[in-house]
Amino acid sequence: MTGWVKIAGLGPGNEALVTPEVTAALAEATDIVGYIPYVARVAERPGLTLHPSDNRVEIDRSQHALDMASEGKRVVVVSSGDPGVFAMASAVYEAVDNGPSDWRNLDIQVLPGITAMLAAAARVGAPLGHDFCTINLSDNLKPWEVIEKRLRLAAQADFAMAFYNPRAKSRPGKFERTLEILREECEPERLIIFARAVSRADEAIKVSTLGEATPEMADMQTMVIVGSSLTRTIDRDGDPIVYTPRFIAKAEG
Amino acid sequence: MTGWVKIAGLGPGNEALVTPEVTAALAEATDIVGYIPYVARVAERPGLTLHPSDNRVEIDRSQHALDMASEGKRVVVVSSGDPGVFAMASAVYEAVDNGPSDWRNLDIQVLPGITAMLAAAARVGAPLGHDFCTINLSDNLKPWEVIEKRLRLAAQADFAMAFYNPRAKSRPGKFERTLEILREECEPERLIIFARAVSRADEAIKVSTLGEATPEMADMQTMVIVGSSLTRTIDRDGDPIVYTPRFIAKAEG
Repeated sequence: MTGWVKIAGLGPGNEALVTPEVTAALAEATDIVGYIPYVARVAERPGLTLHPSDNRVEIDRSQHALDMASEGKRVVVVSSGDPGVFAMASAVYEAVDNGPSDWRNLDIQVLPGITAMLAAAARVGAPLGHDFCTINLSDNLKPWEVIEKRLRLAAQADFAMAFYNPRAKSRPGKFERTLEILREECEPERLIIFARAVSRADEAIKVSTLGEATPEMADMQTMVIVGSSLTRTIDRDGDPIVYTPRFIAKAEG
Repeated sequence: MTGWVKIAGLGPGNEALVTPEVTAALAEATDIVGYIPYVARVAERPGLTLHPSDNRVEIDRSQHALDMASEGKRVVVVSSGDPGVFAMASAVYEAVDNGPSDWRNLDIQVLPGITAMLAAAARVGAPLGHDFCTINLSDNLKPWEVIEKRLRLAAQADFAMAFYNPRAKSRPGKFERTLEILREECEPERLIIFARAVSRADEAIKVSTLGEATPEMADMQTMVIVGSSLTRTIDRDGDPIVYTPRFIAKAEG
């Protein structure tokens, strides 16, 4: 039997957002590895072994997957969202890069999924409909100074911005600092969207402005999207639509 | 009958990347509108009317969809990739914003899809595994100066970058100029990926460097991804893997 590793994106939570390619990989797998709540989304069946593991053990988990594939197992590494966006794809390739040389020629594939920012954007309209950037606000794996520099340059470039992992108990004050930096760089009317548990039963979305936003509006389950200077709302019955127009006028002068 | 508009992402081309949510919407639709090659991806059936239209008529097409939904039709507006990323979602909401006020309370939903940059990233490894930005290189709807400014700031922020619509006959020299700007801001060893027709039968992917890249490596069907300063390759038999590590070290002081 020829083993393989498929690093698969389960999307934001709703099963209607899982691609047929990922569903087929799960059906062919002998082993599933991943963070506990993501492995819990895979149905048990005879011949399939589930290997749930805790957060922050991404490299151990990757090595385990690669080891099993070397032995001929068909291993799916599950991520929520898209595995290539702040998820397991980079971790698996780091393990390959630093591991035994025969891992390099294993059959490893990344199966894309619906990433949280695009699911969140879809729910409110089209806030990422023009140029944007995507930043992980966690400083677990990078210096906070890098985040601060990127926030300022992104604001100066007038990108819309999507933030993953905005807030955690282990990083007190950091999301408050993020809002402060954005308030220094942008006007108070700038739109900011807090989208929690998108596509799941407990989905909750709030459209606010930088002037009115508070740190408590986000938690680790929240996707935060900040508009560009041109992002606007369309008022209607119920929640407003938020979108970024496709057109930018030439500056006068 | 209550009409609706669903703005649906068909993904990059392979049917295994179309979500069940989108497949279900297509099955319920009475009318499909969209750019000719995307509408051609929808199977004909009794009770379904296909309305293919040419490129650059996004607002006309959106108004047509909204008109039909007002009359009780179930309309799917098809985009390739994700409708919220340089595709039809912003156009439909622009039409709503500037249209009759009763359009605002129509049932309009965006159904996310696998966008080209994430499909392309998955094929080569995980080049967008850390902070990145997404820029439309077409200056049809924005001044070229905005693109140039964003490229420089994105390079200074050390984002990986994904470029949509890198090159067209109607914009001669502009992609060459993009490469020049990137060479001024980044080192010649910086990785650049040209991913054409990802997930389709004629897929072609080339991994190069800024020092060696030429404008001819891209066309309108190509997704271009530029790595951050940390993006690296893993050599193996066949094409190299390209990934961006999750870890950024603190600067020496």
